[in-house]
Amino acid sequence: MFEQLGLIGCGLMGGSFALALKKAGLVKRVVGYSKSPSTTERARQMGVIDVEAPSALLAVSGADLVLLAVPVSATEATFKAIRHLLNNNTLVMDVGSTKREVIDAARRVLKDQVGVFVPAHPIAGKELSGVEHADADLYTGRQVILTPIERTLTAQITKAQQVWTALGCHVQQMSPEAHDAAYAAVSHLPHLIAFALMNAINGQAQAKQFLSLAGPGFRDFTRIAASDPSVWRDILSSNREELIAQSRHFQRALHAFENAISAGNPDALESLIEQASSSRAHWRMNAIKPQN
Amino acid sequence: MFEQLGLIGCGLMGGSFALALKKAGLVKRVVGYSKSPSTTERARQMGVIDVEAPSALLAVSGADLVLLAVPVSATEATFKAIRHLLNNNTLVMDVGSTKREVIDAARRVLKDQVGVFVPAHPIAGKELSGVEHADADLYTGRQVILTPIERTLTAQITKAQQVWTALGCHVQQMSPEAHDAAYAAVSHLPHLIAFALMNAINGQAQAKQFLSLAGPGFRDFTRIAASDPSVWRDILSSNREELIAQSRHFQRALHAFENAISAGNPDALESLIEQASSSRAHWRMNAIKPQN
Repeated sequence: MFEQLGLIGCGLMGGSFALALKKAGLVKRVVGYSKSPSTTERARQMGVIDVEAPSALLAVSGADLVLLAVPVSATEATFKAIRHLLNNNTLVMDVGSTKREVIDAARRVLKDQVGVFVPAHPIAGKELSGVEHADADLYTGRQVILTPIERTLTAQITKAQQVWTALGCHVQQMSPEAHDAAYAAVSHLPHLIAFALMNAINGQAQAKQFLSLAGPGFRDFTRIAASDPSVWRDILSSNREELIAQSRHFQRALHAFENAISAGNPDALESLIEQASSSRAHWRMNAIKPQN
Repeated sequence: MFEQLGLIGCGLMGGSFALALKKAGLVKRVVGYSKSPSTTERARQMGVIDVEAPSALLAVSGADLVLLAVPVSATEATFKAIRHLLNNNTLVMDVGSTKREVIDAARRVLKDQVGVFVPAHPIAGKELSGVEHADADLYTGRQVILTPIERTLTAQITKAQQVWTALGCHVQQMSPEAHDAAYAAVSHLPHLIAFALMNAINGQAQAKQFLSLAGPGFRDFTRIAASDPSVWRDILSSNREELIAQSRHFQRALHAFENAISAGNPDALESLIEQASSSRAHWRMNAIKPQN
């Protein structure tokens, strides 16, 4: 049970965390700060936070739990704003989709206090951003990846595991490097591809007609293309090396298909599709709750 | 109201059409044929068809409505098998995802009878194939594209429109060329990409770990990668020119993203994402029923 959550960033991810903590009875008071005062005000009106803080530092004042739910590129400035109020009784976490850059920023800014920060990535989200879409059940049943470093305090790791587990999450730990490589493949590259497909269609004269004819396959395939531009700018930028490497793997696989198609080799093509189809048909999302 | 549906191919698409016709009270009798006798038998046991035919020709015997629901590459052989029993009182349709190759086959084989064939493409499907997944509501609320040629009989076009409309579909006509170009962009390319992504991941040593970490974005993005290999072999092969052209558009768009990422130009990257995100956020599937 925490006395106070200092929430920095009251959008979809941060707002959902606050609502989930409240629903689980794990926090007495949520003090929130957002860059935009209107967001902070809306979060309070919606009951996502109890008190509006005029700065990140004041949101952290008195907090034993701090969540940074800001775009990855805002992490360093946020650490700088709050570092003076952190101590070994504080648990600080983020919810960023990439981990190495965030950890580098934490080392640079927090220095001896870096041990209170437990880097966290809950595998949840929506293509809709903003506190209006905050949802107490966003994280229920989802995976949460913690990527502590050698200096992270054991007590903080334990507390982080307990919080997410109490929210119904399946928690596991891995290195920041392993994390960033894996999510380049299964999340960042799919987003990049979905964005590129939309732009490829929109760049053609018949775009409007093409889009009017699209069906349920297109709908699901491109859902993630509607994701928040500033959030994804940061994710794709901060994981650029792994992402470009994964994109190369993908382009090689795409060319193998194109070669089979252009060569008029239906057996080779079917064999390539069969590998993909069989693998996807047997895949199940590693989730606790039924898939939705 | 039809006396008899001759159903050739009792899988997901054909079986769902038979069930939908029955549910709407539009047919007295369904006689079905599948290449695999066990499929035909299962279709009869499930009540999808009333009578098993030992050949395509015998399924068509006595039929005033014929549906070809076979992989595109089997179309020509099917037309050959049934052409002797077609006359101007028969309405023949297919459900293929590409139209030019099917129409070429119809011209070659049906010759003077080609006018009874109305090429049709219902924009519906599942990543699960087989009569076990046939669903009387698969087509409800979906778009159906008819691509008649100059020789197609007006009476047949009218009847085709009436049937699909009675099944709750939104019917429109376009040229086979316009159809194949549009679906290369919004359906065939997304399938190709989803297949390639699965193979790109599976080709890496960490594939198993990567896949175990994937979440809901990956799940929806790759859903279509589980599609039937022989069906999609035929679709991708038969629309190869349009598909390769669309893949080139896509790769150019992807490279624009990669350039912005590699150059460390977050503004350019955000602008590219913003175009995609805004376009996808405003897109709505052209469907009659609520999206599901």
